[in-house]
Amino acid sequence: MEVHNMSKLLGSLKEAMEKTGLKDGMTISFHHHMRNGDYVLNMVLAQAADMGIKDLNVNASSIFDIHEPILEHIKNGVVTGLECNYMGGKVGRAISQGILERPVIFRSHGGRAGDMENGSSKVDIAFIAAPCADCMGNLSGKYGPSACGSMGYAFSDAMHAKKVVALTDNLVPYPLKDTSIAEGYIDHVVEVEQIGDPTKIVSGTTKITRDPVGLRIAGLAAQVVKNSGYLKDGFSFQTGAGGASLAVAKYVEEMMEKDHIKGSFCMGGITGYLVDMANKGYFETILDVQCFDLKAIESIRENPKHQEISAMRYASPAAKSAAVDSLDVVILGATQVDTDFNVNVHTDSNGYIMGGSGGHCDTAAGAKLAIVVAPLIRARLPLIVDEVLCKSTPGSTVDVIVTQRGIAVNPARIELREKLEKAGLPVKDIKELKKIAEEIAGVPKAVKRGDRVVAKVLYRDGTLLDTIKNTI
Amino acid sequence: MEVHNMSKLLGSLKEAMEKTGLKDGMTISFHHHMRNGDYVLNMVLAQAADMGIKDLNVNASSIFDIHEPILEHIKNGVVTGLECNYMGGKVGRAISQGILERPVIFRSHGGRAGDMENGSSKVDIAFIAAPCADCMGNLSGKYGPSACGSMGYAFSDAMHAKKVVALTDNLVPYPLKDTSIAEGYIDHVVEVEQIGDPTKIVSGTTKITRDPVGLRIAGLAAQVVKNSGYLKDGFSFQTGAGGASLAVAKYVEEMMEKDHIKGSFCMGGITGYLVDMANKGYFETILDVQCFDLKAIESIRENPKHQEISAMRYASPAAKSAAVDSLDVVILGATQVDTDFNVNVHTDSNGYIMGGSGGHCDTAAGAKLAIVVAPLIRARLPLIVDEVLCKSTPGSTVDVIVTQRGIAVNPARIELREKLEKAGLPVKDIKELKKIAEEIAGVPKAVKRGDRVVAKVLYRDGTLLDTIKNTI
Repeated sequence: MEVHNMSKLLGSLKEAMEKTGLKDGMTISFHHHMRNGDYVLNMVLAQAADMGIKDLNVNASSIFDIHEPILEHIKNGVVTGLECNYMGGKVGRAISQGILERPVIFRSHGGRAGDMENGSSKVDIAFIAAPCADCMGNLSGKYGPSACGSMGYAFSDAMHAKKVVALTDNLVPYPLKDTSIAEGYIDHVVEVEQIGDPTKIVSGTTKITRDPVGLRIAGLAAQVVKNSGYLKDGFSFQTGAGGASLAVAKYVEEMMEKDHIKGSFCMGGITGYLVDMANKGYFETILDVQCFDLKAIESIRENPKHQEISAMRYASPAAKSAAVDSLDVVILGATQVDTDFNVNVHTDSNGYIMGGSGGHCDTAAGAKLAIVVAPLIRARLPLIVDEVLCKSTPGSTVDVIVTQRGIAVNPARIELREKLEKAGLPVKDIKELKKIAEEIAGVPKAVKRGDRVVAKVLYRDGTLLDTIKNTI
Repeated sequence: MEVHNMSKLLGSLKEAMEKTGLKDGMTISFHHHMRNGDYVLNMVLAQAADMGIKDLNVNASSIFDIHEPILEHIKNGVVTGLECNYMGGKVGRAISQGILERPVIFRSHGGRAGDMENGSSKVDIAFIAAPCADCMGNLSGKYGPSACGSMGYAFSDAMHAKKVVALTDNLVPYPLKDTSIAEGYIDHVVEVEQIGDPTKIVSGTTKITRDPVGLRIAGLAAQVVKNSGYLKDGFSFQTGAGGASLAVAKYVEEMMEKDHIKGSFCMGGITGYLVDMANKGYFETILDVQCFDLKAIESIRENPKHQEISAMRYASPAAKSAAVDSLDVVILGATQVDTDFNVNVHTDSNGYIMGGSGGHCDTAAGAKLAIVVAPLIRARLPLIVDEVLCKSTPGSTVDVIVTQRGIAVNPARIELREKLEKAGLPVKDIKELKKIAEEIAGVPKAVKRGDRVVAKVLYRDGTLLDTIKNTI
């Protein structure tokens, strides 16, 4: 019969921020399931600025263009540190130009969860955008007007931050029926008008490409999958949301249909295309750390085959194992690849930040076969260079590079190379591919960069993988 | 493309125990969802004895009569420490007689999870009985020949033990579709012939009593619930598996039906009776930390209203909140109650250990109304005494004692007492109830006990609540 405060609900975001003891110099964290429709990060930073808070370190699983207002907060000293796994081009350009004194810390999706788990990344206050919450802080992303589906990346924040504030625009009676993140981790709940715009969860790239070059690349990649020996019963597969990646899925599906292959699981950021494949029986299960479109969100709500997984379960190297460790094949993108198979997904060819690892290096390390698909020439610049401007994923974890003009196989995979050659695929030495590109597009001028480190790229195990210098 | 050992499956329990580095003096843990049908604890201890291991500290969420072989291991020095939340009479009698040199540590279900969470209870190796597992250690209790339903108490062990071994008799292809405990926490998986006998999950006490005294007590308790003011829309309720407790549920259901009351959740160890109540619409949700019968197991597998919760989510005082904090009414048992409302559920009236707190003190502390139901006289001994032989639940958290001869209300609850009196219920001073009992059964002789502390009872927050002395 002890007397309890039977609700964690507070009247305003300001009240919650005051109750957490937010003060100058703290680290605050955010997750990115609302993607380019997220309102929460901007809302919290605006409130912090109003309260006169300075010197915040922002650890956001990803920064999108919608978060551009952070640049004002950087100028005003409200934000002086930034950590993320991905950064969109708008904020990325300003960071590249040196707007922030301290280097940005880039991690991978698995590395971020792992670093929180092992204590090397500490968060004072986590702010969680919750499409559905009850007054004690049981949370779900599956229900409500701003449903985002999986809340996979927010689990680490909830479990490891000292204080946790959930913001919701959909308060439901206690107890929430289908809880993803449970009340034991949540300090305060705040109702807000809208946590985001769910129509902007969909990125522009969740449709299959119609570009003939993209289709050619996808077709070759699917042939690599087929002839690698991994495409058999129990096959597991991850592909991104890019148009070419989805085209690979389409070709792989055709092969699975033809050969009556039943896969085990597909994973990653989930699109409607993968949902359809699972529903047609090509995969037993969908492991979903993030929904990339509304069809995926609808599916995770209703389909028992479609499971939400945390970032830890997805890819954390601090866990005793993660799903990436059981992955057969992953299809990945690249802005640059070097002749040692190192991949850049952090900057464009001019050195401007416009991306990040996300799960790139996690899945490359875990999967039995990591295939990078990319056009050999983009914006009149060759894909393959002597040295990538940023090493996002170590070449030792990348197996195959597929371009429209040929396929390069990591020299460490001799047997794989032989299989692909035997199948008549256009296997070429990576230096030969580089030469072909340069014959068409010319040898690009070296990109000049300044001396200031604007970002540090940590590998999934927390070690320093590379730095990014300022553009000039 | 890093090379991984793609399975955590080992050839034998012995191999797993060796790989964990099991050695003398370690703490090993077990969960009790297989209840009196559990084979795993005995299997592991027999193997440890075979390996010549000594001086083990066993932290089992509960010890049942099936675990009687532990007494041999105690005699042989294999086991020298024991921690649990509940202990059946067979092992309890030997402990009471002083078979173990070090005192047993008793905790509550919430306290055990909390002490693991805050680090005051450390486990070297957890052994998890998994009715369903894949080769990477994704686990579920819902499927397989030994299905036990919820695995609620095993979450803490998996999350906090240094090493975790899952034993299963139902290995399924990776990835397990409906995972409760995820692979990130599991080191090794071992296939065994049988983890237990699921027919013995059901205790003898999951049927409604037919005893007229029991029915009288239940009827009065239901009247207390009704007249307390808590029985209204949103009502939440926990009751145990005892025959009288279930009879309270039946009478409460009749009242809810009559007054068209829709409850929010029922909780605790779940029986088919509560499942039926939820399915009839009396509760929106079932929060299940442990299934008490096969009907509950079937329900948790198939019914989306029926949610598995961890011990942390159920009752941990180390969590930012737990479900017990939102509970309206709990029905509890007692072997003794003293005139300060302290309750004994650890020993019988002769001082022999035959129980434990389980969730008793957790729910009493959390619920708005904690009702203890018990016959005024049992085995010719009065329920109410000057001082309980063991303080399992502090009187300050107990609101009402209901016996067939009258109802005692905690003096701190003046308003509640007035409500019950106004409703014409037989409210009596607890000393008066004691006197009535003594008039019938006589004043019992003081129980003589020795000087040795055979058990320490920790309260849910980890502080020492009481000690139990040896019987003589």
